[in-house]
Amino acid sequence: MTENLSTTTRDRLVTAVAELMRTHGYSAITVKQITTAARAPMGSLYHHFPGGKPQIAAEALRTSGAAYIQLIPLLMDPYDDLREAIPASFAAAAETIEQGGWLNMCPVGTVAGEIADSEPALREVAAEVISSWIEDGTTYFTQRGLPTTDARDLILAILGALEGAFILSRTLRSAEPLHAAGRTLSARVEALLTSNPSTSMR
Amino acid sequence: MTENLSTTTRDRLVTAVAELMRTHGYSAITVKQITTAARAPMGSLYHHFPGGKPQIAAEALRTSGAAYIQLIPLLMDPYDDLREAIPASFAAAAETIEQGGWLNMCPVGTVAGEIADSEPALREVAAEVISSWIEDGTTYFTQRGLPTTDARDLILAILGALEGAFILSRTLRSAEPLHAAGRTLSARVEALLTSNPSTSMR
Repeated sequence: MTENLSTTTRDRLVTAVAELMRTHGYSAITVKQITTAARAPMGSLYHHFPGGKPQIAAEALRTSGAAYIQLIPLLMDPYDDLREAIPASFAAAAETIEQGGWLNMCPVGTVAGEIADSEPALREVAAEVISSWIEDGTTYFTQRGLPTTDARDLILAILGALEGAFILSRTLRSAEPLHAAGRTLSARVEALLTSNPSTSMR
Repeated sequence: MTENLSTTTRDRLVTAVAELMRTHGYSAITVKQITTAARAPMGSLYHHFPGGKPQIAAEALRTSGAAYIQLIPLLMDPYDDLREAIPASFAAAAETIEQGGWLNMCPVGTVAGEIADSEPALREVAAEVISSWIEDGTTYFTQRGLPTTDARDLILAILGALEGAFILSRTLRSAEPLHAAGRTLSARVEALLTSNPSTSMR
């Protein structure tokens, strides 16, 4: 029973820091804000995370990152043709972020951009998360018929375009950058499929 | 003489906050760090910027933003064909950031991502800067022969891809995301030129 309660507090702490990082970034948030948001005593944070804010932030980036990459098959599997799947996925992201009042959808990219030069340990965690996205995305697009090199090139371009378009869209309060990114990636897929005529075009 | 000295202090303060925001983001930096970096007395910051940190940060975003967009003609004018100009520009950005030890090249995108949900006044300044980039880029690509709608679509995709690829490249300490972005944008230009056969392909 104590163990269950303890697990729940730990999960609430990680969720709270992930949510706070989405909207405030890394530096702005305090340990007090995290424990308040998690409805947990201050001591519980250091009990579960002796390394304090950097350690719990690292865990939140890993947890958010693992959830985030699952969106690729979820959004793209329904489309037989990648040339439709990709702009449709960017359009879905645009709709979600607009309906959410332009709130940041994932802390990984924004926190990485904020701390890449100033928090080396956290940067390494962000690099692990992004590297796992690249691996999973490469596997996915290989399964959809692209040669490995092209699949890796495509997921790198998608992740970069998505992270950048999220920043532009949130800042401008406009879905236009996400739609422009979707059209651009679609052109890239078209070019990759044309250069690999044996590809099944799935 | 006093006026000159005064102008110099003001400029040093703006440069200092721009540099600090590049490497530390917005929330992490303090007024004390800014005045120390600018070798200026604390009072000088509030003399020139009565609004304190938010006001000087806004001015630094505007100044950095105005310098940043000038890179587009600088990098692309030497190439007669946009299909070469764009990947060459991303390759140049990759070389510059790698040689600079992966330090952030411009605070606008990263600070915008950090504060878009938490600092409404600063978000509006970032939106002004990004909107001016979109206008200037649309004008540039129109002059290079694209219809206005396509020119706007292209600059939106370039800015998003660049901001996102910078985050990925800085985090991974690898130029690969910038090169992948350059290849993708090149495919988009190819598609735009093909759909506008009357375009001079400059």
